[in-house]
Amino acid sequence: MSTTITAQPGTPFIEISREFAAPPSAVLRAHTDPDLIVRWLGPHGMEMELIEFDARSGGAYHYIHRDSRGEHGFRGVYHTVEADRIIQTFEYLGAPGEVSLESMTFTDLGGRTRLSSRSVFPSVEARDTAVESGMNTGITQSYERLDTVLEEN
Amino acid sequence: MSTTITAQPGTPFIEISREFAAPPSAVLRAHTDPDLIVRWLGPHGMEMELIEFDARSGGAYHYIHRDSRGEHGFRGVYHTVEADRIIQTFEYLGAPGEVSLESMTFTDLGGRTRLSSRSVFPSVEARDTAVESGMNTGITQSYERLDTVLEEN
Repeated sequence: MSTTITAQPGTPFIEISREFAAPPSAVLRAHTDPDLIVRWLGPHGMEMELIEFDARSGGAYHYIHRDSRGEHGFRGVYHTVEADRIIQTFEYLGAPGEVSLESMTFTDLGGRTRLSSRSVFPSVEARDTAVESGMNTGITQSYERLDTVLEEN
Repeated sequence: MSTTITAQPGTPFIEISREFAAPPSAVLRAHTDPDLIVRWLGPHGMEMELIEFDARSGGAYHYIHRDSRGEHGFRGVYHTVEADRIIQTFEYLGAPGEVSLESMTFTDLGGRTRLSSRSVFPSVEARDTAVESGMNTGITQSYERLDTVLEEN
């Protein structure tokens, strides 16, 4: 299935839409279970180490992505973790202080799920930098890997 | 001192600038000490009850504002609490799901402090609704009350 990523010029938003062949409860679990999330978050070939991972409202996360080219750290806090929704902050530790806020909703399509995500950045420039970093490839490949995890669980 | 509040039309941002006659450490403490924050956050005549208040990176808050006309709940999580910066989420529980992200910086002006705040909302509409709610009065009056707290501590 294809991932739609929209970054309207001149705005600080990124919108993502993707369907998965599993119910919302399974998609949520893949986002909140530490044993599952390390299997799909990040591009193909990326290894993920969880330093902290407490996926509930008021919890926090900190992880490191590693591949042959180097490593990148990320951290954030969970404002909301509910059956149909996750709202979390996101900071790439290579650009500290540029924190974005991501709202994901999981819509039940009758055994399938539409994941809709909306990220807001502190400025249009910070959003543009994120887009230019190759973020689209990372998201598209993550969701391809998530398809596989959902098939196997 | 006067509070400058900027909400550029067609954007999801609110920017605030305010100077205080106290050093950054005192302004930070007024934001992170539960005994102090209840004395100034909110308009004149508003009573503030803390349900949860853990003002450190990874912590959370939940409070209720009450006056003769009723009560309003707010909650959020702290992404960053450092000497010169607080980054936190903010949700008015009367409009659940519309979460904004606020970045405050405390700049040392030599014994005085400039507080600069930038909030980003999930949409231009959510930002406009917040502005139309009378938020400006609440912020301006909060900072007048904070002047008094800083004088006394």
